[in-house]
Amino acid sequence: MDSKPVLFALEGSQTFGEAVAEQLDISLAEHEHRDFGDGEHKARPLERVRGRDVYVLHTLFGDDNASVNDKLLTLLFFIATVRDAGAARVTALLPYLAYARKDRRTKDYDPVTTRYVGQLFEAMGVDCVVALEVHNRAAFDNAFRCRTLHLEAHGLFVDEIRDDIGDRPVVIVSPDAGGTKRADRFRDVWVERTGDQPPTAFLEKRRSEGEVSGEAVVGDMEDRVAIIVDDLVAGGTTLLRAVDACRRKGASEVYGVITHGLFGEGSEKLYDNETMTRLLVTDSVRPRMEPGDTGKVTLVSVAGLFADAVRRLRGE
Amino acid sequence: MDSKPVLFALEGSQTFGEAVAEQLDISLAEHEHRDFGDGEHKARPLERVRGRDVYVLHTLFGDDNASVNDKLLTLLFFIATVRDAGAARVTALLPYLAYARKDRRTKDYDPVTTRYVGQLFEAMGVDCVVALEVHNRAAFDNAFRCRTLHLEAHGLFVDEIRDDIGDRPVVIVSPDAGGTKRADRFRDVWVERTGDQPPTAFLEKRRSEGEVSGEAVVGDMEDRVAIIVDDLVAGGTTLLRAVDACRRKGASEVYGVITHGLFGEGSEKLYDNETMTRLLVTDSVRPRMEPGDTGKVTLVSVAGLFADAVRRLRGE
Amino acid sequence: MDSKPVLFALEGSQTFGEAVAEQLDISLAEHEHRDFGDGEHKARPLERVRGRDVYVLHTLFGDDNASVNDKLLTLLFFIATVRDAGAARVTALLPYLAYARKDRRTKDYDPVTTRYVGQLFEAMGVDCVVALEVHNRAAFDNAFRCRTLHLEAHGLFVDEIRDDIGDRPVVIVSPDAGGTKRADRFRDVWVERTGDQPPTAFLEKRRSEGEVSGEAVVGDMEDRVAIIVDDLVAGGTTLLRAVDACRRKGASEVYGVITHGLFGEGSEKLYDNETMTRLLVTDSVRPRMEPGDTGKVTLVSVAGLFADAVRRLRGE
Amino acid sequence: MDSKPVLFALEGSQTFGEAVAEQLDISLAEHEHRDFGDGEHKARPLERVRGRDVYVLHTLFGDDNASVNDKLLTLLFFIATVRDAGAARVTALLPYLAYARKDRRTKDYDPVTTRYVGQLFEAMGVDCVVALEVHNRAAFDNAFRCRTLHLEAHGLFVDEIRDDIGDRPVVIVSPDAGGTKRADRFRDVWVERTGDQPPTAFLEKRRSEGEVSGEAVVGDMEDRVAIIVDDLVAGGTTLLRAVDACRRKGASEVYGVITHGLFGEGSEKLYDNETMTRLLVTDSVRPRMEPGDTGKVTLVSVAGLFADAVRRLRGE
Amino acid sequence: MDSKPVLFALEGSQTFGEAVAEQLDISLAEHEHRDFGDGEHKARPLERVRGRDVYVLHTLFGDDNASVNDKLLTLLFFIATVRDAGAARVTALLPYLAYARKDRRTKDYDPVTTRYVGQLFEAMGVDCVVALEVHNRAAFDNAFRCRTLHLEAHGLFVDEIRDDIGDRPVVIVSPDAGGTKRADRFRDVWVERTGDQPPTAFLEKRRSEGEVSGEAVVGDMEDRVAIIVDDLVAGGTTLLRAVDACRRKGASEVYGVITHGLFGEGSEKLYDNETMTRLLVTDSVRPRMEPGDTGKVTLVSVAGLFADAVRRLRGE
Amino acid sequence: MDSKPVLFALEGSQTFGEAVAEQLDISLAEHEHRDFGDGEHKARPLERVRGRDVYVLHTLFGDDNASVNDKLLTLLFFIATVRDAGAARVTALLPYLAYARKDRRTKDYDPVTTRYVGQLFEAMGVDCVVALEVHNRAAFDNAFRCRTLHLEAHGLFVDEIRDDIGDRPVVIVSPDAGGTKRADRFRDVWVERTGDQPPTAFLEKRRSEGEVSGEAVVGDMEDRVAIIVDDLVAGGTTLLRAVDACRRKGASEVYGVITHGLFGEGSEKLYDNETMTRLLVTDSVRPRMEPGDTGKVTLVSVAGLFADAVRRLRGE
Repeated sequence: MDSKPVLFALEGSQTFGEAVAEQLDISLAEHEHRDFGDGEHKARPLERVRGRDVYVLHTLFGDDNASVNDKLLTLLFFIATVRDAGAARVTALLPYLAYARKDRRTKDYDPVTTRYVGQLFEAMGVDCVVALEVHNRAAFDNAFRCRTLHLEAHGLFVDEIRDDIGDRPVVIVSPDAGGTKRADRFRDVWVERTGDQPPTAFLEKRRSEGEVSGEAVVGDMEDRVAIIVDDLVAGGTTLLRAVDACRRKGASEVYGVITHGLFGEGSEKLYDNETMTRLLVTDSVRPRMEPGDTGKVTLVSVAGLFADAVRRLRGE
Repeated sequence: MDSKPVLFALEGSQTFGEAVAEQLDISLAEHEHRDFGDGEHKARPLERVRGRDVYVLHTLFGDDNASVNDKLLTLLFFIATVRDAGAARVTALLPYLAYARKDRRTKDYDPVTTRYVGQLFEAMGVDCVVALEVHNRAAFDNAFRCRTLHLEAHGLFVDEIRDDIGDRPVVIVSPDAGGTKRADRFRDVWVERTGDQPPTAFLEKRRSEGEVSGEAVVGDMEDRVAIIVDDLVAGGTTLLRAVDACRRKGASEVYGVITHGLFGEGSEKLYDNETMTRLLVTDSVRPRMEPGDTGKVTLVSVAGLFADAVRRLRGE
Repeated sequence: MDSKPVLFALEGSQTFGEAVAEQLDISLAEHEHRDFGDGEHKARPLERVRGRDVYVLHTLFGDDNASVNDKLLTLLFFIATVRDAGAARVTALLPYLAYARKDRRTKDYDPVTTRYVGQLFEAMGVDCVVALEVHNRAAFDNAFRCRTLHLEAHGLFVDEIRDDIGDRPVVIVSPDAGGTKRADRFRDVWVERTGDQPPTAFLEKRRSEGEVSGEAVVGDMEDRVAIIVDDLVAGGTTLLRAVDACRRKGASEVYGVITHGLFGEGSEKLYDNETMTRLLVTDSVRPRMEPGDTGKVTLVSVAGLFADAVRRLRGE
Repeated sequence: MDSKPVLFALEGSQTFGEAVAEQLDISLAEHEHRDFGDGEHKARPLERVRGRDVYVLHTLFGDDNASVNDKLLTLLFFIATVRDAGAARVTALLPYLAYARKDRRTKDYDPVTTRYVGQLFEAMGVDCVVALEVHNRAAFDNAFRCRTLHLEAHGLFVDEIRDDIGDRPVVIVSPDAGGTKRADRFRDVWVERTGDQPPTAFLEKRRSEGEVSGEAVVGDMEDRVAIIVDDLVAGGTTLLRAVDACRRKGASEVYGVITHGLFGEGSEKLYDNETMTRLLVTDSVRPRMEPGDTGKVTLVSVAGLFADAVRRLRGE
Repeated sequence: MDSKPVLFALEGSQTFGEAVAEQLDISLAEHEHRDFGDGEHKARPLERVRGRDVYVLHTLFGDDNASVNDKLLTLLFFIATVRDAGAARVTALLPYLAYARKDRRTKDYDPVTTRYVGQLFEAMGVDCVVALEVHNRAAFDNAFRCRTLHLEAHGLFVDEIRDDIGDRPVVIVSPDAGGTKRADRFRDVWVERTGDQPPTAFLEKRRSEGEVSGEAVVGDMEDRVAIIVDDLVAGGTTLLRAVDACRRKGASEVYGVITHGLFGEGSEKLYDNETMTRLLVTDSVRPRMEPGDTGKVTLVSVAGLFADAVRRLRGE
Repeated sequence: MDSKPVLFALEGSQTFGEAVAEQLDISLAEHEHRDFGDGEHKARPLERVRGRDVYVLHTLFGDDNASVNDKLLTLLFFIATVRDAGAARVTALLPYLAYARKDRRTKDYDPVTTRYVGQLFEAMGVDCVVALEVHNRAAFDNAFRCRTLHLEAHGLFVDEIRDDIGDRPVVIVSPDAGGTKRADRFRDVWVERTGDQPPTAFLEKRRSEGEVSGEAVVGDMEDRVAIIVDDLVAGGTTLLRAVDACRRKGASEVYGVITHGLFGEGSEKLYDNETMTRLLVTDSVRPRMEPGDTGKVTLVSVAGLFADAVRRLRGE
């Protein structure tokens, strides 16, 4: 294979792509993208890919310009195109993987969309898929039969807040019982980097007589800095409820470290919220608002994680 | 297999689907479709499909509610879902197949999107694909390795206009040299149904000193009713240029019989055009305007063609 | 397809198989199984399978006669054999699916054995896999690309204990946070069959200063009959710890309803335990001891579930 | 991969193969080919191919020694053999690809032989297929799912005749409407190499009252040198009719540049034809007669194109 | 599936096909076969195959009209064509399977043509392959992954000669050690049908000091009727050598029962040979000479075997 | 690929693996293997495999610790694991391949286990399989579609005994007619290494009146050293019968050179047998007894053959 990787970033993912390219000390490879009046498109590499180690980056979160489906198909067709053009290896870099929450059948005839997405990638001839903090790790590991690499931002978050918190006691909180494994992973990284051994806690809805009767908080938070760990924040309701619960249980401060800041409708309530000390999200999707507006939200770049992944895949 | 076919029509294709269902003397099968705030969706059948002969109808042309990619992925996931749910056979019914014009490499590294679309359908486990008047028949026949059925609306068009034209002499016109095979097919049907043996003609751009120097018309049109045959009309410019050329060559009247009435931006000029006698399109895509507005445009329903196809596939 | 299903039960699964056959009003199909001195074997159907709808039942839990791997390979080879012999459809019936707990990568280079098992079944040409209460539903749904059917014994358990419990208040308990979805499913069935709306609760390990500091119980149990729901019981330690926690929190009685009674080393402590009121398991694996010994353990047969599954797959 | 490519040329393609090898500065790799009395054969490489970049050249045009099917199967089996023997990559080099004209369904139940050929190559494990001027580019691009490279001889033809023609005005002619894209490609190369911007023209059959009523010539030819561009010449009738039509329309001279000189029965009429100035074909198939006989026919070698393709595939 | 099978017999196999059809009480299905001047061809069914159970019969032995490769590719393309046309199931009926003797690697880089043939059939989408007496049963069973059915003519041979031989003592002879399993199978059928328990014998080349030193005969033949069993006779040398050896060892008469009478160059010596009592072959390939010429050779029809196979595959 | 191969040897194959590693001048790569109480296991590499050329060695013969099925599944899962972990190439090294004797259908509905094993290896993504002296070469060559390499120990055996035998005349003996090809191969190596041209002989069961009437010996043995060649020795009965037959026919001494010394129940009779001069087996499986006990049995290491195979596969 050629001595350098070839990195394409598709429409809407170019800022992120440039950050990754810079860390790899290369330029983004050029491609042509034409949108037609009927919503179809055509994209093709403008650089030689034959015999080269090709990476195609696209963050599969819909925005005003392109729906999540537009992005997914654009990526799939581009992967097929570079494979056809003779790439030695094609790797998809996915800061945000779509459809990760439709991961099992809960009703009759339910789709298992996580798997269908895996099958579509494979049909286009992808060799490897790199994704950041997918919603259900087991679903991801089972859905894809090609090679996969799963990235986590925990280390970046820890580095960002540890000085801030100093030696105040901490508690690592999962906003629901299903997320305790993720919180445990964050705790592992915290321990590794700070030497501190914080307790964990989590919240869970309880039902009584058929009604959700409240948010149970499991674990001691009194006078601790609570760090809520989650994979994504959309409308913000779940997060704020968790923040409130932590406060009620005596947490002195509440941090949120949440990989994907989707910030959908209603999420503006997160910015002027007084109970939340800080909210850290990554740049895996393009945020709607400037995170610097209120000083509460910090955007942590994961471009370095993807650059590292490329280096690891190349055996560097 | 169960004694009756199961027919689903996805969001935006339900009017068409109901027309097909009615001709098959069944009701459309019910399904649930939920759109999420982030642009993702989940759809599932609400009726038993296990062991049954299932048809999923979707016309893959973008509209205000859903882009062509939204529709294509919705269809692909739904096919996978009914296959997972145990359908004995899954057939896609496509009044309009997307991406049919990206059918070959004309530049370095060009995509062959027609083939990628075929590979995606196959990855989801489709058994058969039925499509109406695809742009390039050879591309279609080579791209899909599952079973396919190709439908044409020529007979419907002939029946619609033959009384109108009566015994005036006719000439069958292709608006470009690449479409002569399609015009020949239309002529075959015309001959079969009317007994008349009309001449054919076509138009072609000529280049001189590097410039397109005009529209050449090959064939005699003097005092004949010209019938222009094409697969689709988008902006309308090509069609109107053809109409003008026919008129200049002496055609007494000009009909257009064009399968897919995409009617994109600028196509309103077709409706108040005096040189064109009548324009016939099918209901393969939902037209933007009421075709009855000016009396020029006639919408011919192809629901019957799809009902026939279902019957043929079932060996009825 | 022939009018009757053909059901084989491989060595060690024949008692269960006969129960299923009886419910289907057929006899077990005969096959020959020869073990060779070197541990290899050869098995083949002794009845015509060509053109027929074949079911092969094997419970993939190792016993004194055959390791789990012996059973898995025997099943895989037998599936290939009936497929080669021309079966119209081959379905694996798995009261207990092996390797269901190796469902994700938690360390570098970890296997995803759930998926590998799925790939092996598919390589042998299986058409459908039916399994009872797999450990991780999302892993299962994503690992297999052939058709699958997932069965649950909840209804059988409810029917077995509802009269016993009468109108005393109940609480549905998951022994860990990861099992809350399963407990919720049990509760749904409870609601459906009794009309009663019991609260849920769960237990979770908490860590403090790096140590597991105890079992947190979330939910109110005071004077309620606690029903602990889980997929399997092996050594029994987890279950007994859950029983103790329920008792400490005031539960008046404690039932266990656990699908797979693996009863490994040390599990004898479950039988003479006074704190547990009753333990219900299914006959998905052959238990080591007679469940009637102490009166505490009830064996609920799931043969009917598998017979129902066969009927459903046949569209009956 | 080894530092040098390994090139095999199968029986009947060895002269061409040696020309390619010479340009690559290697020797043809040796293989053994044995024909048995019953028409079966066995062929195998006599040189190490394990871990090497292997090219197998065969021109799939039947001759007195071997039918087109004999050649195709010999090639397919040889590809499988070198793959089995551990080649790192196997590329088929096809100066003439067989069955390229059966490219779509025109009648019920028609074969799509172009696709079947693609599927056979893939079944044998080929990595890449290189073909010269296939009949239908869209069919070729869609039929093969492995990598393909499509070569054209236009540049070689232009170089061969441009001095001959000098600065006399030229017109590029397609002998039928379906070949206008090919003629346009030739014109692009002509423009690129000469700076001249010639007009294009084409011929087309017209039908009147059900009869082919004549050859329409579209475009101005008066006093121009007409260059007829086509993919293949078999019996020669089509070509001579085109030559006559050009002459009638006033062309001062008529050249033919036609990639594959199949020269089937009746084609001898091409050699003593006075109306045709010169006919250029490539050595993609072995011509029946010495092209130098009459001075009219020039054989242009495309060995260099294939050597270039090998270099490009190797990233040289 | 339709109530009747659809049977096609390709060019050169139609006499045989008609015999099979007659036994199935159907007519051969019609197809069109066109040979083009360049050796390519196009064939297509002329009857509806959609949803039907289709059988394509072709005996893959080259004759004056078509080489073995011509026949193999004609069959492969036809299989793909009927599959494309929607056949419910496609079965190849092969009275003689080509390339069955290239069944293993004996030298470096040897082809394993038996397997490649299997892969080609599968690539065209065949569902089942039925073949008569293949050279190496293990190779056949391993090469094909689709369903296969292996037929033998032993019963027909026994019925043909048993009255002829009457109660004279018999010995079953394999002409080489590799064929002893086949001779044993013939003996099993002999036992089953006659009740007689004949001994077996075989011949084998021996080498001494590097030379083949003669034909060893193992087994007692004195005053017995020797029945030589083999899969095929080509040049006849091996068979005559076996006949001579049997005579030398005291056999009173010598019969040959040999499935495939290829009768290649030199085989005329078999007809006027006095030492051989009778030679029975089947009509699996079309013999060059009339078998009735000398009265020595009897042609036994295996059409009934193939008709039976069709019935068995249909579950009749 | 990395400059050095990575070699794993699974549980029970580590002694052999270390011998191979030593010859390759590397250390065995480390892996973790955990057996769980229920017979399931988890294994994973502890060294980086991404982008490297990985070899996994396991001899698939059951012993007291693990059945043949345990070993086969452990190997299959480990192959999948290293492939998932990104190995550039995964090769299985199999001193003893299991299930090699179930190589064809001899009865209705028989399994073809050799092929199923091949399909399982391929399903796990193996790139190449290297096996020593498989039972049926044709079955092996046809069963696997991935690359295979077949090794033989003949050269090692010849080197071990040639000095021993000196210039006494030799005869190469196959213990049954089916093994004559193997004996011929051994003879070829003998000729190549000693220049001597020994005769061959073989034994075969004969049947008379339905009974096996004795062991026929074909070939001259008088005063020769008989060398019996076979692939495996299990119970030893066949071997001893062959030894006796050789002695009866006048062999002065009898050697056995048998690749796989399985030494099952009853094989102890081989050690104190006076008629057999020497028995040579390889270390492909772990022998039950110390071969040095009686001086009769010599264990020849084939570790070097596997090290050579690795070097050849790496193009060294």
